[in-house]
Amino acid sequence: MRDTGPVMSAPAGAHYLRARRLGIDTQYEAVVFMHKDCPVCRSEGFIAHNRLLLRAGERHIIATLYQSTTDLVAHNEAALSESAWVRLDLKDGDTISISHPDSLESLSLVRGRIYGNEITEDAALAIITDVVDGKYSDIHLSSFITACAARPLERREILALTKAMVDAGDRLSWNADTVLDKHSVGGLPGNRTTPIIVSIVAALGLTIPKTSSRAITSPAGTADTMETMAPVELATADIHRVVEQEGGCIVWGGAIKLSPADDILIRVERALDLDSEGQMIASVLSKKIAAGSTHLILDLPVGPTAKVRSQQAADALSVGLYAVAEAFGIKAKVITGDGTQPIGRGIGPALEANDVLAVLQCEMGAPRDLRDRAIALAGALIELGGLAQHGSGAAIAAQTLDNGRAWAKFQRICEAQGGMRTPPKSRHRHPLAGARAGRVDAIDNRKIAKLAKLAGAPEAKAAGVELHVKLGDAVVMGQPLCTVHADAPGELAYALAYADVNPEMIMVQER
Amino acid sequence: MRDTGPVMSAPAGAHYLRARRLGIDTQYEAVVFMHKDCPVCRSEGFIAHNRLLLRAGERHIIATLYQSTTDLVAHNEAALSESAWVRLDLKDGDTISISHPDSLESLSLVRGRIYGNEITEDAALAIITDVVDGKYSDIHLSSFITACAARPLERREILALTKAMVDAGDRLSWNADTVLDKHSVGGLPGNRTTPIIVSIVAALGLTIPKTSSRAITSPAGTADTMETMAPVELATADIHRVVEQEGGCIVWGGAIKLSPADDILIRVERALDLDSEGQMIASVLSKKIAAGSTHLILDLPVGPTAKVRSQQAADALSVGLYAVAEAFGIKAKVITGDGTQPIGRGIGPALEANDVLAVLQCEMGAPRDLRDRAIALAGALIELGGLAQHGSGAAIAAQTLDNGRAWAKFQRICEAQGGMRTPPKSRHRHPLAGARAGRVDAIDNRKIAKLAKLAGAPEAKAAGVELHVKLGDAVVMGQPLCTVHADAPGELAYALAYADVNPEMIMVQER
Repeated sequence: MRDTGPVMSAPAGAHYLRARRLGIDTQYEAVVFMHKDCPVCRSEGFIAHNRLLLRAGERHIIATLYQSTTDLVAHNEAALSESAWVRLDLKDGDTISISHPDSLESLSLVRGRIYGNEITEDAALAIITDVVDGKYSDIHLSSFITACAARPLERREILALTKAMVDAGDRLSWNADTVLDKHSVGGLPGNRTTPIIVSIVAALGLTIPKTSSRAITSPAGTADTMETMAPVELATADIHRVVEQEGGCIVWGGAIKLSPADDILIRVERALDLDSEGQMIASVLSKKIAAGSTHLILDLPVGPTAKVRSQQAADALSVGLYAVAEAFGIKAKVITGDGTQPIGRGIGPALEANDVLAVLQCEMGAPRDLRDRAIALAGALIELGGLAQHGSGAAIAAQTLDNGRAWAKFQRICEAQGGMRTPPKSRHRHPLAGARAGRVDAIDNRKIAKLAKLAGAPEAKAAGVELHVKLGDAVVMGQPLCTVHADAPGELAYALAYADVNPEMIMVQER
Repeated sequence: MRDTGPVMSAPAGAHYLRARRLGIDTQYEAVVFMHKDCPVCRSEGFIAHNRLLLRAGERHIIATLYQSTTDLVAHNEAALSESAWVRLDLKDGDTISISHPDSLESLSLVRGRIYGNEITEDAALAIITDVVDGKYSDIHLSSFITACAARPLERREILALTKAMVDAGDRLSWNADTVLDKHSVGGLPGNRTTPIIVSIVAALGLTIPKTSSRAITSPAGTADTMETMAPVELATADIHRVVEQEGGCIVWGGAIKLSPADDILIRVERALDLDSEGQMIASVLSKKIAAGSTHLILDLPVGPTAKVRSQQAADALSVGLYAVAEAFGIKAKVITGDGTQPIGRGIGPALEANDVLAVLQCEMGAPRDLRDRAIALAGALIELGGLAQHGSGAAIAAQTLDNGRAWAKFQRICEAQGGMRTPPKSRHRHPLAGARAGRVDAIDNRKIAKLAKLAGAPEAKAAGVELHVKLGDAVVMGQPLCTVHADAPGELAYALAYADVNPEMIMVQER
């Protein structure tokens, strides 16, 4: 078709508005606020919740539109959420262009998966590329994840997905044939073995460049705990320097884009409380392949309130994991362990750091379970790395702890990362006592984690929960079962109120 | 557990903040904006995207949290989106309570469905009740919908879901044994037979209380079109009065809460472009059962750019629909029709109303396809309602149109609904001409709909597209194929720019 009338100066596909930083934290989601009656919304027919393409120079993002009906946003303005502002790298007064995004072609591949088509390598790449580009809304992400769970992923599909997730991000490489790594499947408070394992393994001359995550829904991630003892936000060049110098590091992985699709998908999986086997394998292995690892120990706590709830589920997961790992040249080993109660005593960044330091310094009162678990996992890594025969790794790990070499190595790693620190101490503490005498019968991992979060962890580094009892311990009436640590009186009060209405968090069985 | 220390005045589970109307349109989604450092966020550990329970008096909603990092929101304020404000029925300065919502128990039933469990009646009721209560986020809704598509719904499950959707809303009842209804599966622009059918059927003394929807993604819904001719937002009592007096009505269904879950689910299905058979049946029938209908004609346009794309798909849908309808005592009949091109000439509220009026007034130039389709559907309804033998309904319908009784009935219905109106005329028009001679080979329903929306439909009632050709028409070079109607020069320009880069919208094949 062509116009029969006079030529009109029709606008191109995009409109321009002045960018304004609105100061709204929406987490990962990019949001743009425009006036409902602004020329762009009117001419484009945009309505709230439309997904729009925003461009500023070379950068572009997809943002969700909300519309202002008051003078909160002017007619010539596009007000942006923090995530949108940062990703577009804007200064106040910059101009951005706004247009309809291209239609999301890869969505037809998601629909195909729903109706039973296989996810080929090409399909995986198309979907994951769009996911990383921020083109999928929560609705799309949730549909993809659900489709992969309702019709379980075939081995070939897990391989395709893992490869696509690796290819869509950065990759690290190391000057070593054997690059060790360790991963814990989450869900167990206080399971902070990483700093101990890295110290043992690196002290023995092996290479273990460990990237860890911060807490998302838990009271502490390994990066949060480690940060109370040393800086963890290192640039890639600095990470390489630390690892070359010390053989190992314990840094935050968020600064490097290893399998960025994983971070996006995991958030939605968590909201659905849905962890299908195939997705878990692709998630773990894509991060490890991208990190350049060659040998991997997977720590799998099994218990009724842990992520993996039975030995059978753990076994099934292991079979798939070994096969996919092998296809990518990674030697993997799954170590299952007791997931019925928290590990160590502290829950919260500084409190967990105290446990780590006690084990590394071989203190008399160091938590035995944390020490034993770290030794078991480090031993398995030593065997996997070829430094010890099968069955002798744990003894070597224990020796390396006991002779102080691991503690010395840990201090050197901390110094190399920017200088060792002393974990902060909480300002407010309050013991919670058992209402009856008896034996500790059950500890609810999820409720203990929530108590620590209400007390302020992980933002308040010193906040959290210090457990005084383990399963099976005999207690008398009024004996403190745990102590709540907080930095603000309000947070302490709120945690105590929660404890008050959840007495079954630590269950004492009368005899 | 109990405190061993001094008794603290711990806050209860809820916090109180002053409500403020922020003037942000987020469509259906309830959003609350709080300062990131306000006492509530700090003590509760709330982060952006948390789902919070807001209460004001007897009302409560679940809202998504966004956090302000500037003085946009004060520390003692909770600023609300329009949807949240309206649903809580607030005035400025009101106090609302904010707390964690109860955990979403029915989500385990969704997970169960993902892993292959049947949706029982109890499960359907639990899920749908939570959906209607606004407890499901987009992530949860999308997972539920995908799970129902990836493992197709069994007949029993469709029944359970339909029943739950009916029970979760209001129901209408009528003083008639036979209550007729008609539903069109969307996707075909200009398919505005409803006002004609209702007029014919009511003129014959049958009962047809028709509730219609407004456009969500299309350039016009039946309610939008009807509103250019008469008021459509009637209270339930007024609807009953109109139907008792005239036998029929054509009103907006949004004021009555018939199967409110359907409106929530459809929005997500649309974002996924996913219409599974079971969901479509539950969606259509739950609305009709709630509306008190006993006899239903389903208008199913079939074509490559329509919602149902093959006769085979239409047949499969019919079988399921008949079975479920019968279980609820509804006699249903599916009428398939040509879905390869728009119906009538106008696309947009007033332009479609012009077509409707031309058919009702038996104008010489009235669009033949709209007339034929209305007669076919009305004829089928007359037969279904027992007023005519099989095969003779269409003739009776045509006669009722031709003798002016349908037009008279339509005028009386409009008067009963509040007074007849004349559809508005557009201020700006621009013809689009064919670039070559030949025959009209294809018309893209979706692109024509988009053109009409860019021109301002449905908000601008007079805006839209007027088609001058049908499939198979011979055209000469430069002949106008359609005219764009708009109320604002900017909207006209934008529509023309879109037409310019989409010449294949109306395809002319050279010979």
